[in-house]
Parts: sequence; C-alpha cells; structure tokens
Amino acid sequence: MPRPRRSEQTREALITAGIDQISMHGYHGTGIKQILDIVNVPKGSFYNFFSSKEAFVAELIKEYSRTVQTQLNDYQLNQGATLSPVEQLRDIYKFGVQEFANSQFQKSCLIGALAADIGAESALCQQALKKAMTEWQDVFTKLFEQAQQAGELRTDVSALQLSSVYWSTWEGSLLKMKVTGDAQAASDTMEMMLSIFFKAA
Amino acid sequence: MPRPRRSEQTREALITAGIDQISMHGYHGTGIKQILDIVNVPKGSFYNFFSSKEAFVAELIKEYSRTVQTQLNDYQLNQGATLSPVEQLRDIYKFGVQEFANSQFQKSCLIGALAADIGAESALCQQALKKAMTEWQDVFTKLFEQAQQAGELRTDVSALQLSSVYWSTWEGSLLKMKVTGDAQAASDTMEMMLSIFFKAA
Repeated sequence: MPRPRRSEQTREALITAGIDQISMHGYHGTGIKQILDIVNVPKGSFYNFFSSKEAFVAELIKEYSRTVQTQLNDYQLNQGATLSPVEQLRDIYKFGVQEFANSQFQKSCLIGALAADIGAESALCQQALKKAMTEWQDVFTKLFEQAQQAGELRTDVSALQLSSVYWSTWEGSLLKMKVTGDAQAASDTMEMMLSIFFKAA
Repeated sequence: MPRPRRSEQTREALITAGIDQISMHGYHGTGIKQILDIVNVPKGSFYNFFSSKEAFVAELIKEYSRTVQTQLNDYQLNQGATLSPVEQLRDIYKFGVQEFANSQFQKSCLIGALAADIGAESALCQQALKKAMTEWQDVFTKLFEQAQQAGELRTDVSALQLSSVYWSTWEGSLLKMKVTGDAQAASDTMEMMLSIFFKAA
C-alpha cells in the first residue's frame, strides 16, 4: 500500500533540508533539530521516517546521488545530446562550479563534505558514500570512454582511471574553492585536466 | 620575558591533541572538552592560551602548516638531497599516503578536513587555511619548477598551475581514501599525475 501523500511530502522536505544543511555545515555541524525547525516537523515525526541521524544521512547520500544521476542523465538527453563528450564534461564542471558559487561557496558537494567528516567514522554512511562515488564514476567513465573513442582524450590511460583522477581533482578543487571563494581557479583546474593533461596527443 | 616552560608544554600538548582530534573528527566533531581530557588540563587553563575554539583552531592550522613545512624542508636537505625533483615529489606523496594509512584512514590532512567543514564559516580559520595552502603551494611550485628545468615535467603549463592542480588532486585522493581505505588507489592517482599527465612530452 503506498504511503499517504502528506507523509511522503514530509519525508522529502526532511531530505531536501538535510542535503542543504549538511552540504553547508557537515555531519557534525548539523543538528537534527536544525533540520526539524526548517521543515517545521516535530521530533517524534522524524523518527517515524529514520531510525537515527546516521540512517538519515545515509539516506541523504543515496538521494543526493540519485538526484545527481538524474540531472546528468537529463543533461545528456537534452542540452548535451549534440555536444562532443569533452564539451559535455566541460558543461558539467561549469554547472557544478556555478551551483556552488551561487551559494556564496557555503555549499559544496555533499559526498565530498561527508567523506571529510564522517567517511571513516560511520560504516553505514561509508557504504552509502562508496556507492555514490561508484555511481558518479560510472557515468563519467562512460563519458571518458566516448571521448577516447572520439579521439578527444588520450588512450594510454583507461577511461576508468581518467574518471578516478578526475573525481579527486574535482573534489579537491571544491575544497579549495570553499576556502578561497575563487570559482575561476576551480574552473581553470578542471579545464586544464580536460584540455591539457587528459588531451589526446 | 619568555613564558615559563611548563605553560609552553601545556600549550604544545593542547595543539598536538587538537591537530590529532580535528584531523580525525573535523571542527564540529571535536569538542574542546575532548581535547582537555586528553591533555588533562582544566577548562580555565585552555582560555589562558586561546580566546575561543575558533582562535585555537586557527592556531592549529598555523602550527600544522609550520610542521609540514619543517618536514618538507628537512626531507629536502636530507633524504631528498640526492634525488631528482620528481623522485622527491614521489617520496612526499608516498609518505603522506602512508601516514594517513597508518591511522587506519581515520586521520586526514588537517587543511583538507577543515576546508570541508569550516572553510566558508569562520573568517579567522579561512584566513589561516588560505595562508597554509599558499605555504604548501610555494614549496611545491619550487619543486615543480626544478622538475621542469630538469626536463622531467612538461613546461607548457606553469609550475604554479601544476602545483595548484596537484594540490586539488591530492586532497581529493585523501577524501576518497578516507571512505574506501584504499591507499593504493590514492598512490596510483598521484603517480599518474607525475609520470603521465605532468610528464614532459
């Protein structure tokens, strides 16, 4: 039997506020109360949906990853459809940089933020983070493969390795951007990856 | 007049415990009480040394950066003295990966950990983080310059840009390693930067 609509809305509101707050303040910097106040939900209700803060955050990671997957998928079917793989990769990093810049650099990638502060502490979150990283990587590995096949990127390194290095550089750039507020530097770094370091000889 | 030795020792013990705890649990995940308990110091005494948690953490960042600078300097004067610039860069990333692996991936780079969870929140810490990043970057830019002059690394990108990208990739690799516990993958990523992507044509 499907859950009543109202309850589903509350759950979604908790998740949205949770992603928002935790991508700004991290796991330890975000209290459940903070989220309940934003959504205007009593504490008891929270525990109808999630057994603990840890379980809640693991759910946020899943939901965040699902949203990113959907956005990437939609992009590839629409604006990206007529672009080359590297042009798509460029659009995607630019979109990401812009999104975090729009938050005055307060927000960052939820996966990176949580990896830093709970990555090694909670087995439940760790599992969810690993899965999210793999999901991200799968999409990008495909794009890197296509770019290699199109002759845009070097082929002496596997698409999987390109995508793995790219993830690290991306997350590190976001960390730096959070401190410096320098969106251009983050874009420059990602652009160098695509148009210099990963470029086909 | 120099401060009495005992008080200096207490301050150092607070700083050491602070770096330790915060590189594991982040800013919000570490309480001052936790640190006081480790060092066995009463709360009042803490505020003789530091006016607030924020001021304390800014001091930790400075101290951590100073320690890293000293380690890098000692390394270059000793084991590194007879090695090529790229061999030195390789030694340094291997040392870093090993150090964090030895902590069962609980610890990470203090700068990266704090960038993630306080980088955009505290102006005082943000300033200290920026300065630490610049200090790190200065050492590495010099090494990248030397590597370029020695013909080991590509020269179509400035040493400063190589060092900037390298920092991002390094911090992102540490984030990933914290979640996956995979030290080899972190080493592989850094090795690809040096021996493939940054390599002289």
